Parts: sequence; C-alpha cells; structure tokens
Amino acid sequence: MKHNIKFAPLLLPVIAAFVFSCNQPQTKTKNAKQETVAATDPLPSWNEGASKQSIVVFVKNSTDTTSKGFIPVADRIACFDNDGTLWTEKPLPFQLYFMIDRIKAMAPQHPEWKSKQPFKGILEGNLKTALAGGEKALLDIAFASHARITTDEFDKSVKEWMATATHPKTGKHYNEMVYQPMIELLNYLRANGYKPFIVSGGGIDFMRVWAEQAYGIPPYQVVGSSVETRYDTTGAQPVLIKLAELNFNDDKLGKPVGIHQHIGKRPVFAAGNSDGDYGMIQYTSTGSGPRFGMYVHHTDSLREFFYDREPGLARLNKGLDDAAKYHWLIVDMKNDWKKIYPFEK
Amino acid sequence: MKHNIKFAPLLLPVIAAFVFSCNQPQTKTKNAKQETVAATDPLPSWNEGASKQSIVVFVKNSTDTTSKGFIPVADRIACFDNDGTLWTEKPLPFQLYFMIDRIKAMAPQHPEWKSKQPFKGILEGNLKTALAGGEKALLDIAFASHARITTDEFDKSVKEWMATATHPKTGKHYNEMVYQPMIELLNYLRANGYKPFIVSGGGIDFMRVWAEQAYGIPPYQVVGSSVETRYDTTGAQPVLIKLAELNFNDDKLGKPVGIHQHIGKRPVFAAGNSDGDYGMIQYTSTGSGPRFGMYVHHTDSLREFFYDREPGLARLNKGLDDAAKYHWLIVDMKNDWKKIYPFEK
Repeated sequence: MKHNIKFAPLLLPVIAAFVFSCNQPQTKTKNAKQETVAATDPLPSWNEGASKQSIVVFVKNSTDTTSKGFIPVADRIACFDNDGTLWTEKPLPFQLYFMIDRIKAMAPQHPEWKSKQPFKGILEGNLKTALAGGEKALLDIAFASHARITTDEFDKSVKEWMATATHPKTGKHYNEMVYQPMIELLNYLRANGYKPFIVSGGGIDFMRVWAEQAYGIPPYQVVGSSVETRYDTTGAQPVLIKLAELNFNDDKLGKPVGIHQHIGKRPVFAAGNSDGDYGMIQYTSTGSGPRFGMYVHHTDSLREFFYDREPGLARLNKGLDDAAKYHWLIVDMKNDWKKIYPFEK
Repeated sequence: MKHNIKFAPLLLPVIAAFVFSCNQPQTKTKNAKQETVAATDPLPSWNEGASKQSIVVFVKNSTDTTSKGFIPVADRIACFDNDGTLWTEKPLPFQLYFMIDRIKAMAPQHPEWKSKQPFKGILEGNLKTALAGGEKALLDIAFASHARITTDEFDKSVKEWMATATHPKTGKHYNEMVYQPMIELLNYLRANGYKPFIVSGGGIDFMRVWAEQAYGIPPYQVVGSSVETRYDTTGAQPVLIKLAELNFNDDKLGKPVGIHQHIGKRPVFAAGNSDGDYGMIQYTSTGSGPRFGMYVHHTDSLREFFYDREPGLARLNKGLDDAAKYHWLIVDMKNDWKKIYPFEK
C-alpha cells in the first residue's frame, strides 16, 4: 500500500522535537508481564471510578451470552496504538532514539558521514542542524537506520539497542517504560477471550522484536508502518532485504486500512492517545453491536508527561472534541492510574 | 507493497484455461471440520507410508523437548498455499468462477456490458472472446468483481456465491471441495501447538469469508493478494472501499514478502503444490533448526485432477526438480491419500 504522504510516521516526531537525549545509568530490564495481578481485581493499577467501571462493565457484558452487550469470541478483536498508549513517547518517540543511536553505531563504517548532513549533525549531537535538510534529511536518517539490511540483521540491531539504551529522563530501558495499567488491560482482555493487536504508526519490524516480551503480543498481531522488502536468493541463505522505500504508513486514515489488511475484521475495542488514532477508534466505534473506544489522556506532568491539544506530534484535539459524540472513554492518567510504570513501588 | 507484475495472480488462471463451466445440481454444504478424526490416528485419511510417517515424525520431534527436532511453541508457524493445496483448483481456480458469476449477477445494473468486451464474452459464455483483450480485459474482469465496492458488500457477495454456486464436475459447493487429508493435517498441527496461516496467491478478502469455517483459520491468519483500500467517512457510516488498483501480489517471490509483512517470522512448516509456492517453501526450509517443506503432487486423474510439469497455471516443475536438494516431501495424492474430499464415503 502506498499513500501520498510526505513523511513516514516514524519520521514525524523529529520535526516536532529538537531536544536531544543525555544518557543516564543503565538499570536492569524487567518484564512487565511479571507484575502480579490480583485474582480478585483484574485492573489493580486502575483507581476505582467511572473509567475503570466502564471498562469492566463492557468486558463483563461482552462475555455474558444473556447480555445485549455480548460479543462472540471470534469478534473480540482489540486494537491498541503503541506510542503514548502502551508506552511513553516523550520527550521523543523511542524509535527516534533508536535511529539516532543506530547512526552513531554505524558511523565508523561511514567516514563520509562526518562531513555530510544529516549524519554530521546527529554525530555532533545537533539534531536541529541535522534536520535543517527537511524531508530528505529525515528520510536519509530513517533509511540509514531501517533499510539496506536484512530483516534478521535489523532485528538484531533493535534487540541489542533495547538491551543497552536508556531513557534520558528515567534512566530505564525503553521497554521498561510501558504502562502497567495498560498491561493489566491487555491481560484482562485476553483472559476474556479478546485478541489484542498493536496498530501503530511505528515501525512494524521495530515493534515485533520486543512486543511479545513487553505486552505478550506476538509478531503476527503487530500492525505498523513498513518499508518495502525483497526476497533475495543470491547469497548462501535466502533472506529478506529491507529497502529504502516506504511500503505502508500506518497512521491516521491508514490505520483502518492497516487493520483491514492485517486483521480482516472490524475491531470491537480500540485504544489510542492522539488524533493519529482517531480513524482507528472511529472505525471501531461505528460498527454495529457493542463497541468500546478509549483515549489515554496524558494529564500527569509529574509521573509522566502532560500534553494534549497543542499542535505538533501526538496532538489530541479532535479526539477530545468528539469523545462525547462517539461515547469514547477519556482515561485521565493522573487520576485514573494508581501507577504508571511496572517499576514503580 | 507493489511489484512489477503484469497480472494479479487472481487473474492468471484465465490465461491458461478457456474451458467454461456448466453448472450441475446443487448439493448441501457440509463443514469439513466436522469430519471425525480418530483419536488414535491424527491423520486417518492418509495411507500408511513414508509420507505420513515423515509428517508424524517431524511433528512428534518438534514437541519433544529432548529431541534435536524440538521447536518452541512461539516458532511453530505453518504456512499453506490454498488453491491446489487445501482445495481443488481445476478445471479453473474457484475464484475465477466467482468473478464470472459475479459479473453475470451485476449485469442488470450494467446494460452497457452487453456490447462491451470483456463483459460481453462472459455474459455470452464465451470466455475465449472475453479474454482476447489480454491484460486489460483481465483487469476489467477482476476489478469489476472485486473493486469499487465496500469491504462489507464484497464479503456479502462472496458469502452468497459460496452458498449457491457449484463446481462443474462434482456439483458440490466449492467450499466442500477441500482436501480431507489437509484438514486433518491442519488439525494435527494445531493440536501440537502450531499456528497455521494461509499464504495464497488468491484474494485475501475472498478467502477470509469462508476460510474459518472450511479450515478453522481466522481472517487474521490469511495472507493473500489484495487491491488497495481507502477509509471513507463521507457516508452515514465510515467504511472501507476496495479500489481498482492492485496492492499486493502474494505469489512466487511475493510469498516470503507477504509472510514477513503479515507474520513477521520465518515459518518452520510450509506446504504448496506449484512453483508459485517455491519461494515460500524455500524461505521456510532454509532457516536454521528443524524445518518441513512439502508439495502436494496432483497425481490422481480419477478422484481429482492430474497435472504437474506442463507449462501454464499451477505448474510444478522446479519444485519437483529441487525436492531432494531441500529434503521436501512430495505427497502423492493418488497413493498417499485414502480419500480426497470430506464428502467421500
């Protein structure tokens, strides 16, 4: 699928953010799924209140054959955005940190980058200069870090990065910065016969490497943006090569398209956090029968980040405006969530 | 994904075949999954012998943690071609019958078709004349029957067709003409922790409508060829519209690409029946660790159809040549299968 877009979503963050990270000491990786979930309360990290209640009522009704809200198991398809919905996306989307680190790691094999933008800027820690070249600069960065490489080599590079890189604010590994309440929601839905999919603007191959450990979501339940790949049999072993050409942009109006392409069913449950998820949640909410749409609203400047209507990346404006019209739940992170991350006490 | 191809695989059959069907009396639809499988023998429709034995040994080893052939559950991905591997594809691939019938059904709304090729030829039962227009004629037929329609409307058209149309030779509904030994193989693999996917050159949306009932394979485990779709919010309810533009050709070298795009893992088990499946089975067989590749060889001219090396659609030539090199199993339909279809006594 090709769409007339100027930027792949995995690139967009760069435009909006010019603050560069400073690495902090590493911490040990912990699997979020290992968090204990009380048998009596499937959502222990959610405060009691209308938000938690509406989720529980929907799920209970959907499994009750005598309820008007009953949904057959085969139709229990749930879709989740990733950046800002399942894990943090500030100060920069984590995949952008990967791009920057990857270019630094590849620099010794590319001496020409020392004097060539956008690479020069990245190597010198000056993202603003690196990005002065606009769209071409962004594509150069993305393709240098995501293409002209086999799928196996790319997976390895993500895996190694995830095991070593740390977040500039928390010092935690990025896959530790998943939202504990959302992990519980995924587990709760699965326990009630739902099949959760990630439907993200992020790179499909980037997410697949760590999503199964972090969320219990296997590679074939991940939908995302992608570059073209080519099957190559010229070497000792046939491989797939990632090409420097955009294949699919799984954002905005592309999300319902990606859902149809990969899942082939209209979901009954969808969760996002920005207007990039509007189409997905709208598509989900406007099917016949019981439906649940929700937005994670980033209201916690102390424990996480505060952002919503301001223009730029991850803007949540239209979603807030139309929430009442579509009966969407707006989750207030500050008040609805007892804890944000699994590593919190 | 776009590939430089001249014909979508859902069109290719037309080139090779000019024999037109004559409908025979309808029979009642029967769900293949309802066939009884003996608890003691997971593959009762397979004759005892080397073929059956090699499948059973591979599967048993793959679930035995003490075996060198052990495969972790998360890696037990199995891919199956559809046409000629899971159901019959002669005298014409069944999706082509759908196209023809669909154009006949739509004709009253298109009076101009009476005098316009390729539609005129189809309406007059003269496929050869219809196809004299070459590639453009083929695309006209495919898009008229598969595009400019919402995904829901398309699903409905396939469902209605499957419930009424019958095969010219057997008089059975097309979804009754699935191979009982392959149904048993799918069940056997599932019972041993495998996740089976369809990876077919046929239309992804066409297959999804009936694959779950016929094979127990849900829509999100179907990979196939597709047209572009567009999310449309101009009507009362947001819908997805199938466009008259090819999105992905899931055939030949496209199969490994489709597998990566949808599944994100190299399979450990693959089954096909033509050189269109060569790339898929090669990609599967050349990964590290235990692998199983197999071809269904159409050797039974009495109970089904005989075809292999002759040029044209569904040719199996390179696959037979390289079977020994890659240790692929060649299943001899005539001698390895006790019965072909579930409806046989």
